[in-house]
Amino acid sequence: MKNVNILATIDSNYVLPLKVMLYSLFVNNRQTRFDIYVIHSDLSDTVLDDLNSLSARFGSRVWPVVIENGLFSKAPVFKHYTKAMYYRLLAFELLPQNLDKILYLDPDILIINPIDKLYNTDISGFLFAAASHTMLTPLTRHINKIRLKTGEKQDYYNSGVLLMNLELLRSTVNAEEIFDYVEKHKNELLLPDQDILNGLFGERILPLDDSLYNYDARKSSTYYISSLGEKTLDWVMKNTVILHFCGKQKPWEKGYINRYAALYKHYQRMIAT
Amino acid sequence: MKNVNILATIDSNYVLPLKVMLYSLFVNNRQTRFDIYVIHSDLSDTVLDDLNSLSARFGSRVWPVVIENGLFSKAPVFKHYTKAMYYRLLAFELLPQNLDKILYLDPDILIINPIDKLYNTDISGFLFAAASHTMLTPLTRHINKIRLKTGEKQDYYNSGVLLMNLELLRSTVNAEEIFDYVEKHKNELLLPDQDILNGLFGERILPLDDSLYNYDARKSSTYYISSLGEKTLDWVMKNTVILHFCGKQKPWEKGYINRYAALYKHYQRMIAT
Repeated sequence: MKNVNILATIDSNYVLPLKVMLYSLFVNNRQTRFDIYVIHSDLSDTVLDDLNSLSARFGSRVWPVVIENGLFSKAPVFKHYTKAMYYRLLAFELLPQNLDKILYLDPDILIINPIDKLYNTDISGFLFAAASHTMLTPLTRHINKIRLKTGEKQDYYNSGVLLMNLELLRSTVNAEEIFDYVEKHKNELLLPDQDILNGLFGERILPLDDSLYNYDARKSSTYYISSLGEKTLDWVMKNTVILHFCGKQKPWEKGYINRYAALYKHYQRMIAT
Repeated sequence: MKNVNILATIDSNYVLPLKVMLYSLFVNNRQTRFDIYVIHSDLSDTVLDDLNSLSARFGSRVWPVVIENGLFSKAPVFKHYTKAMYYRLLAFELLPQNLDKILYLDPDILIINPIDKLYNTDISGFLFAAASHTMLTPLTRHINKIRLKTGEKQDYYNSGVLLMNLELLRSTVNAEEIFDYVEKHKNELLLPDQDILNGLFGERILPLDDSLYNYDARKSSTYYISSLGEKTLDWVMKNTVILHFCGKQKPWEKGYINRYAALYKHYQRMIAT
């Protein structure tokens, strides 16, 4: 039995997708025991019990981390974003201090293969490991570079899958630094946590292969073409670990269609049985 | 616990799809105990043990029915078809005589919802219940009518999903009748068992809704359009019981792509774990 730490930060609107994500993780990693840390401020006991019993079926466990109201009193809040946007970036302060490593996962994903190799990636010297969707969105890339003033060679990382070097984060980063950055860049930030991640830490991120660890489920043709025909559906089902259902339309909503929609709806169904 | 009889007739090339089909059946019908009858002539003990242990995991059981070499000595054989084409049509003679009803399923299908309602369909007075794909293939329909000389109002039924009224079959049909029909129509039969089913028994078949019980996985747009937008992917995942992967290209082969391909490959993966 291997032990793996997983981090999720959700509010009560994302309970269903979180359950689907966790179920897919468990079912495709039966030899692994997971400690699932859930940073939240509004989940009810019923919801937490429900998450825990799903996890217990697979020998895993949920650890809720409640954020009290006053905790981020110094954090700048702006536009329609809430303090929840800090949970991911400040996880290294909010989580038990003995954890050295954790894999943060957005709730809008499916894990369809073993995650060992990702989790065991050597991230010494890096704060995070993450994938960019740069190849998929050349225009956004250019805009982001101007907006965040990052170097020409630096990718814009997607913050939906983040392997966190908690030890290094604790010893080199502090909350003030993050709050200051937000205060200074208030007007440029569009996707707050992702922009902060890139603007502040971009150069200390180990790049991951998005076709394996953060596959944008909308872009199967792009992956196929840019791999010269290698990354077929069969390739994805065999090799891709994380399917990310990026974009405004979500697979648990009615009318969502793409090559992986039926697969998502199947997993969604399975949590009910 | 409900009891349901299932029939499969495969040769050794279809063991993998049969396992996928059975797994999907079990997983989506956890409250049902299945007796799976497998009519075959070449399955090894290893294969049969394997099928049985998959079934046992879900409280179900496999009953092999071996066809000895001499059994169909009087059956006409022609073109590239073998005697195996008779297994389905003669099941009423080959199976234990105390069975009154059985659901025949092709191996190239997935069962994605409970089958109770289908199995409990009242078929008194009919030999079979089956679905036609007529709406999907208007041209073929016309050709089949000329070829098999069936009446204008009669559908051409797909033989991949057949609810069999074994009692009525035993009391009204005999093997000679089937062999005679084949002998007479040798030159017109293209899809032997399906053509025989329609030519001989077409008028004694209860029509089923194919969008529920024999959904042609290649034709999602046709179902969607002809239902005026009702039969979406969400509708199918919620309502359709049997997805049939019709056609020459099969979902367990490389390069197979359609809206349900990832779902199939997922089930295929799950039987290995």
